[in-house]
Amino acid sequence: MTSSPATDAGETGKIPDIGDVIAAGERLKGVVRRTPLLESPLLNERLGGRLLLKAECLQITGSFKLRGAYNRISRIPEQARAAGVVAYSSGNHAQGVAMAARMLGIGAIIIMPEDAPRIKRENTRALGAEVVLYDRRKQRREDIGEAYLREHGGTLVRPYDDRFVIAGQGSTALEILDQAGEAGAEIDQVIAPCGGGGLLAGIALAFADRSPTTRIYGAEPEGFDDLARSLREGKRRGNSRIDGSICDAIMTPCTGDLTYPILARHAAAAFALSDEEVTAAMRTAFEHFKIVIEPGGAVALAAVLAGKCDPRGRTSVVVASGGNCDPADFARLTAGRSQAGKPQKRENTQKGKI
Amino acid sequence: MTSSPATDAGETGKIPDIGDVIAAGERLKGVVRRTPLLESPLLNERLGGRLLLKAECLQITGSFKLRGAYNRISRIPEQARAAGVVAYSSGNHAQGVAMAARMLGIGAIIIMPEDAPRIKRENTRALGAEVVLYDRRKQRREDIGEAYLREHGGTLVRPYDDRFVIAGQGSTALEILDQAGEAGAEIDQVIAPCGGGGLLAGIALAFADRSPTTRIYGAEPEGFDDLARSLREGKRRGNSRIDGSICDAIMTPCTGDLTYPILARHAAAAFALSDEEVTAAMRTAFEHFKIVIEPGGAVALAAVLAGKCDPRGRTSVVVASGGNCDPADFARLTAGRSQAGKPQKRENTQKGKI
Repeated sequence: MTSSPATDAGETGKIPDIGDVIAAGERLKGVVRRTPLLESPLLNERLGGRLLLKAECLQITGSFKLRGAYNRISRIPEQARAAGVVAYSSGNHAQGVAMAARMLGIGAIIIMPEDAPRIKRENTRALGAEVVLYDRRKQRREDIGEAYLREHGGTLVRPYDDRFVIAGQGSTALEILDQAGEAGAEIDQVIAPCGGGGLLAGIALAFADRSPTTRIYGAEPEGFDDLARSLREGKRRGNSRIDGSICDAIMTPCTGDLTYPILARHAAAAFALSDEEVTAAMRTAFEHFKIVIEPGGAVALAAVLAGKCDPRGRTSVVVASGGNCDPADFARLTAGRSQAGKPQKRENTQKGKI
Repeated sequence: MTSSPATDAGETGKIPDIGDVIAAGERLKGVVRRTPLLESPLLNERLGGRLLLKAECLQITGSFKLRGAYNRISRIPEQARAAGVVAYSSGNHAQGVAMAARMLGIGAIIIMPEDAPRIKRENTRALGAEVVLYDRRKQRREDIGEAYLREHGGTLVRPYDDRFVIAGQGSTALEILDQAGEAGAEIDQVIAPCGGGGLLAGIALAFADRSPTTRIYGAEPEGFDDLARSLREGKRRGNSRIDGSICDAIMTPCTGDLTYPILARHAAAAFALSDEEVTAAMRTAFEHFKIVIEPGGAVALAAVLAGKCDPRGRTSVVVASGGNCDPADFARLTAGRSQAGKPQKRENTQKGKI
């Protein structure tokens, strides 16, 4: 972790509370899209429960990341704006920061690995950000960022370990609660993808306040199940791997200094999903909801479809957190016979402190 | 055209007016999904105009057809409900009717060609409808339907030539107008797919009343450009082909007795789209909006992307009318290098009375 510049480090380094999430929800109205909460009667029947899918893949820039980025960047004091913002990201956070900075008229530097997907580099540039490429095998992105910040100034926008980023992501849950109310649904459980944990922590804060009996679960790629282990063992754990999953967006080393305490308190457990379970979920989303979910965005849906989080007789909300997947990759990953809506395991294989 | 049973033929055979559309909008609240009006800042930049996409592919059953089907079936008098409803369709209307009938507790018989896509047959059955298959080369579906109606009774639910079906589809436009208002957009032009013309006619009625300066355009597959020719020639024309386009959902012989008079009055022109232009639009929708559009549902977006309907300096709304496409077909159709957002022709190739 690099240090944040002096402008507002004290403010952003605090663990957010429900007041921060509500303030974020107000600040983001008219800025982010109120993405739909989708439902498929046929899929419900096959699952034996009610499944509501929050389609954040339909968010502007194709993922929820705009929420936290805008909430954070809009808090930068006037006098610090001219120096711009700096972020590290290979994809969704990059586009969220680039878009938020553009909306607010602030310059953005995004430090991206030179092997990041072409479409993500191009979109980030197209949004007006300056993209600085580095070689992942030879350079640390933190070193490049720190050198840049020392020389030029600017505000670092962390992907998850920031009070206002977490609160912004939590606005997703405020919408879910309103939309479920409109649909006459009481939510028994919410499952969201977890990498650094910004989205899941923000959601957990909102539900703890507004719907405290709803169980909160994380979903992670196999081999990156640090949250599942952390919750089981009562202590923050990390992942030894740095690759080996198709879920590029959430292959993070561990949860954050700010996100983990929230998750430890409010998340019941986390589920680990195989590449096969994730691609089956991507295909089901395509067939039943007509949406594109990228691998990392599909883990929560996969947890339900694979029977790892039991949907039977319950109302479950899954967050589809992003859809930035190249059409060719999507086709390659989802090729094969559909298993749409067919839970692959019926036995309870939940992990953690249930 | 077969005759409708006596129960309500007089009512359903009239050309609808704006009052019918508004009544449909009220009746469908809480029944159909208020699908989002999506927008991509990057795509807007590339097009040089503002493009809003009404994502009816995200509608329940994967197309707008539930609107008209529910609006029509809910009007069936109590004493006629026990005999059920009958519909002909190979896909989207079938699922819309099956779902609406199920919601209203009415039996449904759907007459489908035996070579209809497996997923559409299975979904229609899964929604509780009885599917009667026939051989398109040997039998006329109208004969099967008439024989069934004579023997068993029941109410025929036409796919487009019905006052309440057209009015129901028009509820799409009421949502568009509300959503565009929320987004601060004044709509210069609306483009919607046109087969039999139920959706386009319903939309035209709503805009003629609520936003009369908005131009209304149809989009059709090449070889099925009967509306374009009809509007140019001032007389309803038909198509000589019965296949040869990937747009299975809108390969209709001509517009209807009720839809054509509405379109002749309110539609400015129609555009014909090639299979290549349609698949480019499907790919762009995947990349920029993260949604699945089936070929017939993508013609309106294709008209703008291909430059046939000029988006520059204007606010355009395109309706993505359905998303019922098998993942393997989608992958095959959209394989190849993306042309996302790149208008392929800049010259004005609009057809009809502009």
